[in-house]
Amino acid sequence: MPTHDESPSHAADRLTAAIERIGAPVCVGIDPVADRLPASVAGNAKDTPDAFASFVQGLLDAVAPYVTCVKFQSACFEVLGAASVNLLRTLTTEAHDRGLAVILDAKRGDIGISAEQYATAAFGPPSHEPDDSHPDWITINTYLGEDGIAPFLRPQRGAFALVRTSNPGGDALQSRRLADGRTVAECVAEMVAAIGRDHVGTSGYSALGAVVGATRPDDAARLRELMPQQIFLVPGFGAQGGGVDDILPCFQAGGRGAIVTASRSVIYAFEPDAADWKQPVADAARRLADEVGRAVGRR
Amino acid sequence: MPTHDESPSHAADRLTAAIERIGAPVCVGIDPVADRLPASVAGNAKDTPDAFASFVQGLLDAVAPYVTCVKFQSACFEVLGAASVNLLRTLTTEAHDRGLAVILDAKRGDIGISAEQYATAAFGPPSHEPDDSHPDWITINTYLGEDGIAPFLRPQRGAFALVRTSNPGGDALQSRRLADGRTVAECVAEMVAAIGRDHVGTSGYSALGAVVGATRPDDAARLRELMPQQIFLVPGFGAQGGGVDDILPCFQAGGRGAIVTASRSVIYAFEPDAADWKQPVADAARRLADEVGRAVGRR
Repeated sequence: MPTHDESPSHAADRLTAAIERIGAPVCVGIDPVADRLPASVAGNAKDTPDAFASFVQGLLDAVAPYVTCVKFQSACFEVLGAASVNLLRTLTTEAHDRGLAVILDAKRGDIGISAEQYATAAFGPPSHEPDDSHPDWITINTYLGEDGIAPFLRPQRGAFALVRTSNPGGDALQSRRLADGRTVAECVAEMVAAIGRDHVGTSGYSALGAVVGATRPDDAARLRELMPQQIFLVPGFGAQGGGVDDILPCFQAGGRGAIVTASRSVIYAFEPDAADWKQPVADAARRLADEVGRAVGRR
Repeated sequence: MPTHDESPSHAADRLTAAIERIGAPVCVGIDPVADRLPASVAGNAKDTPDAFASFVQGLLDAVAPYVTCVKFQSACFEVLGAASVNLLRTLTTEAHDRGLAVILDAKRGDIGISAEQYATAAFGPPSHEPDDSHPDWITINTYLGEDGIAPFLRPQRGAFALVRTSNPGGDALQSRRLADGRTVAECVAEMVAAIGRDHVGTSGYSALGAVVGATRPDDAARLRELMPQQIFLVPGFGAQGGGVDDILPCFQAGGRGAIVTASRSVIYAFEPDAADWKQPVADAARRLADEVGRAVGRR
């Protein structure tokens, strides 16, 4: 398996190459919550950085053979306080060491200097080349418009913009119909497509991707048309109710252009708790990769 | 001046009482950037937690006599890495010690467990009462709908939801007209007003407030009608181009219901650098308070 260092320098090229290599466009969301950690890694102190580190290292070992990518949920680490910052960097390095691409799911959204500072917190100073302790991608919020997006489009790094989320509450705004006939999500999609056009790699995909939930297949089909150059990051499969038929509209021909992400259905597959908790997690990652890989015609 | 501990237990009641006490609905945004720190606090090592701490402590001393509130820009601290977490908690305590209310400008936006974790990172575990090291308010993003808002409405604490931001790029989405005649921002405003209704204190204001920029006075007037129970946090005054006439529509009768926030025009008022950098900052804070206080009829 090629190491991260040998990968191409454009974030979308690197991710699409990794998907080809693994044969399944699948990501595992790493959302650790203290009271769900396996007893064998955590003992009596589940809410410590050490317990989180052991759990996540085990998860990375378990899923690395089967999936392309992991997505760290920033909130789940930030709750640990100061230790979370270096823990996330260590775990990002360890994920890269296992050949995994890394998304930081931070959903940051600000403008101007603040957006630049968030990008620097994630990717390091603009004057330095990012290294394996920095994520390949970050998730961002587009409510503030282009000023909130551009600062995250660093060389070698990418951003997934929230376009259509998978939660029920997302409808309240995202599915509203504009006077011109588009939905709010479609309006955001066109903005994302336009901004992303200047950041397309040799793969044909942009360093600006889009989060498009698996729970609204009709919306996804329309969003796919509007954003031909965006890699879709597709949550909502599994625990949130999306099935195989729901993810298909997110993909382009040849099973390209999207990556399905599942969190709880994989990382808590050992529940109720078992001594060998990694095996059920590995099995769940393999099943996810098989199911999605077959559905999109890659297996 | 009453200490923070003697304040009422509802975030909006506490903030409105503080505005009455100071006589000016004014907040100073603390957005430190390494290369703009005064030479006398930073010397040759401007990008260190110690330099930031000295600068911010000086800012707090300078502005505390004149303003109600400070707003820490999370991005500007996160860029410091692990040290930022405890630094922000220390500075939050020090702001409270000086009688200032504290807003954490983090613009967090996620759902479910992740939103709960962000709320815990800001306000501490739900099982514990927040203390003076926790901010009184946090700013949040509403693109994900109600699921992204409710977890932040903790007892004694509040959230300002982004409704209409002051940046030019915000127009691309927020000023779009829906098929039903409302703008996107007005749609968000109605959602915020509805969710906030269950969290109104004895002051008549909700623990769910709204960010409404000073750069769109016509929009602000309409948003004021739609959100009678929201305290407006009003950025864009000063450096971003909003003037006195632009902020007035954000206020209700008696100069109530809004708080104007300015960052760069106050905290960098010493530029070009001076040995006694705190005096120009204090003067700028006093002028801001006078100008806004007079404009809204409080002086």
